[in-house]
Amino acid sequence: CASPPSSYSITLIPGDGIGPEIISVVKDVLVLVGSLEGIKFEFQEVLMGGAALDATGVPLPDDTLSAAKQSHAVLLGAVGGYKWDKNEKHLKPETGLLQIRKELGVFANLRPATVYSPLVDASTLKREVAEGVDIMLIRELTGGIYFGEPRGFGTNENGEEIGFNTEIYATHEIDRIAHFAFKVAQKRCGKLCSVDKANVLEASMLWRKRFLAIAQEYPDVELSHMYVDNASMRLIRDPKQFDTMVTNNIFGDILSDEASMVTGSIGMLPSASLGASGPGLFEPIHGSAPDIAGQDKANPFATVLSAAMLLRYGLGEEKAAKRIENAVVDTLNRGFRTGDIYFAGTKLVGCKQLGEEILKSVESNV
Amino acid sequence: CASPPSSYSITLIPGDGIGPEIISVVKDVLVLVGSLEGIKFEFQEVLMGGAALDATGVPLPDDTLSAAKQSHAVLLGAVGGYKWDKNEKHLKPETGLLQIRKELGVFANLRPATVYSPLVDASTLKREVAEGVDIMLIRELTGGIYFGEPRGFGTNENGEEIGFNTEIYATHEIDRIAHFAFKVAQKRCGKLCSVDKANVLEASMLWRKRFLAIAQEYPDVELSHMYVDNASMRLIRDPKQFDTMVTNNIFGDILSDEASMVTGSIGMLPSASLGASGPGLFEPIHGSAPDIAGQDKANPFATVLSAAMLLRYGLGEEKAAKRIENAVVDTLNRGFRTGDIYFAGTKLVGCKQLGEEILKSVESNV
Ligand SMILES: CC(C)[C@H](C(=O)O)[C@@H](O)C(=O)O
Ligand SMILES: CC(C)[C@H](C(=O)O)[C@@H](O)C(=O)O
Repeated sequence: CASPPSSYSITLIPGDGIGPEIISVVKDVLVLVGSLEGIKFEFQEVLMGGAALDATGVPLPDDTLSAAKQSHAVLLGAVGGYKWDKNEKHLKPETGLLQIRKELGVFANLRPATVYSPLVDASTLKREVAEGVDIMLIRELTGGIYFGEPRGFGTNENGEEIGFNTEIYATHEIDRIAHFAFKVAQKRCGKLCSVDKANVLEASMLWRKRFLAIAQEYPDVELSHMYVDNASMRLIRDPKQFDTMVTNNIFGDILSDEASMVTGSIGMLPSASLGASGPGLFEPIHGSAPDIAGQDKANPFATVLSAAMLLRYGLGEEKAAKRIENAVVDTLNRGFRTGDIYFAGTKLVGCKQLGEEILKSVESNV
Repeated sequence: CASPPSSYSITLIPGDGIGPEIISVVKDVLVLVGSLEGIKFEFQEVLMGGAALDATGVPLPDDTLSAAKQSHAVLLGAVGGYKWDKNEKHLKPETGLLQIRKELGVFANLRPATVYSPLVDASTLKREVAEGVDIMLIRELTGGIYFGEPRGFGTNENGEEIGFNTEIYATHEIDRIAHFAFKVAQKRCGKLCSVDKANVLEASMLWRKRFLAIAQEYPDVELSHMYVDNASMRLIRDPKQFDTMVTNNIFGDILSDEASMVTGSIGMLPSASLGASGPGLFEPIHGSAPDIAGQDKANPFATVLSAAMLLRYGLGEEKAAKRIENAVVDTLNRGFRTGDIYFAGTKLVGCKQLGEEILKSVESNV
């Protein structure tokens, strides 16, 4: 077991919209946790998305990528905004995000959907349906239709314009996400639900075949299969039936967002994207919210919780991770809320003040 | 204007599982409505899905297809079951369904998600969120990744097995579903939300481009665009924001099922699949429910409402369609329920008895 480095290098990518505000809060939180837990961080701030487009003409500058690759972990705010919405594909902020995922090889996207007790009423689902929901959805992030070739535009035999993409999975891509998912399930309740459309799509049939084969190596995990249309229903009908879920890139995009909305507060939800080695990418699941950018209204909790995932999954610093997560619960219990999770009887504060309250909770460590 | 035929020929496909029970109820309903409204039907029952596999070795026999093509409309119960789940793709019951959709050219799938007042508590969404939901989701049904070529299995340059499918849309496929959707929106609240993933997929970019172009011809319709991941969130967060939605085959598969679960009672939801000409295909959205097949527990409402869609969209018999829909509401108001929509204080009945109660409501026509 190698001893941890004397200092971790963290790449911070504030990005667009509310990104800079929330990253600024999280940096303070990391510094404080570090000083309390005896962990040193070196931060490097770099550009991506719209901010990078404006400054350099590309959504993922080489400098950003090499800084990210050389660091121990990457923490991202959010990218995108109306301003760049009409850009051509290779000049969209989102393209930078897709590129960095691919370049870092972070094939496994961990998307917890956790209902926090004090926020259960934020869900549009009835209390008894939402309460206690605790799903870990794993999305394959660097394969499938988002990256598959051939793709593009063309003309068919009738002279009409066509647009096309390729959903494609190779055995090793399925196998590595399967092993990853089985291991996550082992550490949770030992129930893994693999979501596909194997009644129609060949890519899904291979997916299911590989999962069935790899299941032999994890006799302690109970594997089930569900069609994606059915899964999208059951997430609303009875989300508590799910423990660990795993699915491909596109289905994961749709279902992870659906699952997050089951909790009612996407302002609370972090994510981690991990590869076989090298730095992981950690980001809140919400977007850049250009409509409230710069107004001190953004909710920093999801990014703070992404920093906790960074500590746990990226650096193996479990104690510091837990300290942050406890601080979030403590801040919630003390009643502090940004507008998106506010309700009568709680204390409405801005992004900055919420950050200060989180620091107090980190400090007091109750 | 051609006068209606003296008698409509209806192809009935009971299919598998609970299919035969619910089709038998609906046949009686159609006969009664016909006699009361002066409409004559000739029915022809044919095989599809698992039933056809067992009897003929294929999921869509030629006889079935030609009967369907020669009739004025096709009413389907449901197909599929555990028994055939492991079959190869071309021998799956679902393949028969995909084939008949393609063969009939029914490119537009109408999926209403309507919350019935007496059933609002069946939704897992809070009453204030679910009440009044009335969405018409239109799914492109004969294109996209379900049918796109190339597809299949193969070996990549590393000698690994791969599985692949092609998401592909040609201009005419997008245009015809767009015109269809705009026209539906015109007859509803004039709001059309087109769902895509145009920030990543070329097939979606073409989709969006064509919708923007065709929107010029419908200045009375307010067109909006939404990414599929966002749509899957908003359907839970605030389903009432949607009036008419339109999307591609795969997104439509997932979102229409999600929307239906928002209503809480998929046993209530019909569907219609229409082409440019020729017979439409009408079916409940629920599956064949093999676990309760033959036990007189199935809920026939969704198939009865599919028959109403058949009368409206397939035959242009609006008055008869309305009569059936009113009868469904009346039967609900009189408290009759199958197990799936039962709650304390209502009257639990079997499929057959519910059928008889619907007949009474059709007769009394309140
Ligand atoms: C912005 C977009 C490319 C991205 C995706 O679909 O992967 C986003 O929706 C996400 O889920 O992180
Ligand atoms: C059975 C299957 C092929 C079908 C589909 O996905 O189209 C079903 O899920 C549906 O939505 O009608």
